[in-house]
Amino acid sequence: MAKNHHHAFSPEMRRGLYEAIFRRRDMREFLPDAVPDDVLARVLIAAHHAASVGFTQPWDFVIVRDIERRREVKRVFEEERQRNALQFEGARRERFLALKLEGILEAPLNLIVTCEPERFGPGVLGKVSLREVEVYSTCLAVENLWLAARAEGLGVGWVSIMRNEDLSRIFSIPANVIPLAYLCIGYVPDFPERPILESAQWAKRLPPRNLLHFDSWNHGALDGDKLAAAMESALIWREIFPDDIPDGR
Amino acid sequence: MAKNHHHAFSPEMRRGLYEAIFRRRDMREFLPDAVPDDVLARVLIAAHHAASVGFTQPWDFVIVRDIERRREVKRVFEEERQRNALQFEGARRERFLALKLEGILEAPLNLIVTCEPERFGPGVLGKVSLREVEVYSTCLAVENLWLAARAEGLGVGWVSIMRNEDLSRIFSIPANVIPLAYLCIGYVPDFPERPILESAQWAKRLPPRNLLHFDSWNHGALDGDKLAAAMESALIWREIFPDDIPDGR
Repeated sequence: MAKNHHHAFSPEMRRGLYEAIFRRRDMREFLPDAVPDDVLARVLIAAHHAASVGFTQPWDFVIVRDIERRREVKRVFEEERQRNALQFEGARRERFLALKLEGILEAPLNLIVTCEPERFGPGVLGKVSLREVEVYSTCLAVENLWLAARAEGLGVGWVSIMRNEDLSRIFSIPANVIPLAYLCIGYVPDFPERPILESAQWAKRLPPRNLLHFDSWNHGALDGDKLAAAMESALIWREIFPDDIPDGR
Repeated sequence: MAKNHHHAFSPEMRRGLYEAIFRRRDMREFLPDAVPDDVLARVLIAAHHAASVGFTQPWDFVIVRDIERRREVKRVFEEERQRNALQFEGARRERFLALKLEGILEAPLNLIVTCEPERFGPGVLGKVSLREVEVYSTCLAVENLWLAARAEGLGVGWVSIMRNEDLSRIFSIPANVIPLAYLCIGYVPDFPERPILESAQWAKRLPPRNLLHFDSWNHGALDGDKLAAAMESALIWREIFPDDIPDGR
């Protein structure tokens, strides 16, 4: 290993991270068992250690256990789901309506990750030219939370079919705060090997080389491009996954 | 460990993930050494395995090595930095201008993560009620990339002071694609123990209990709340970090 690589983690430690990345799933089936406070605390601390523009840490966490509020969430979700279905036609609409998209009532815990863009007033380092940077930061926190949950054996499902104004009303969230992510969290019977929408043949994983551009949008990966070839090779994982690479990779 | 925890990773594997989360930094100092293709390939594959709404995978990656384009990026960055400084006054403005905020020319690699919201047309599962979900998905990919880079020993710095229209012009990015994150990537002399803006006393880590709400925005953590106490305790990390918890945690 070259001298400048001395900050790299050991293969075993890297594996811990990559396992979380490859085995994380957007879950809709949950067991009723409660999530212990120490486990939830680690997951929330992981979220709180995401990067944020100007170190603004614009996130808050609304822990939702109250069943009445969750019934109301489920009700507004159902309205939105029916509306969402109208954009699809024929067999694709049927397939959409057959998909289970949430575990609002089954999961022992729902969690809203919010974003307060002007937490420290309008003067924020990195802020004048990009208005949405606090929203970006909050999404980074959600991914930390999602990966930590997976490593702790917890499933997370992001219910994205929902109107912010409904969530703000149900949970008394002030107008200056965005209820960015509505998550269902809990232990699960199983984590599927592949993303649910991939197994359900809703969509396919895009070939990595199609996503590459070099110095300009107009220059894609040419035949024989080494980076594209490496992305499609199992060999780059051999040191980290000596036995088996997760199937969903 | 209870029966429903059987999907949890071992403490050692969890440690790999949490080390990446706690030791990730927003870097501005880079070594000139090239990033090997296999390492970059793993980092990009990690990004490509983020969650995305309706499995749309709306991201692309523009690999930037061309020094002329990077000089142009640096030029527009400097303009924006001067404009950004105007929102601060007196000593805070001086402190802002003294901060190094990018490594555009020093880093061996710049990378733009883009977002194409209508990649598969307007009909997207989960899309009717939330317009920004593809942007959220792309941010999740950025966090995966950032964590994987850290585990591989690579520093990443997000240059958020930049106008999208400048980036689109310099890299010929079409109007329907958002140049969401401009990143500098490379090996680094050192990863600081704490976030740079925290050490520079620009801002402080918020106390975790202040971020908690229970069932309603109006119900914060009370004295004696077990979850808040767990978040502030070193004990919850003992199994995962038997010797030392990363200082930045």
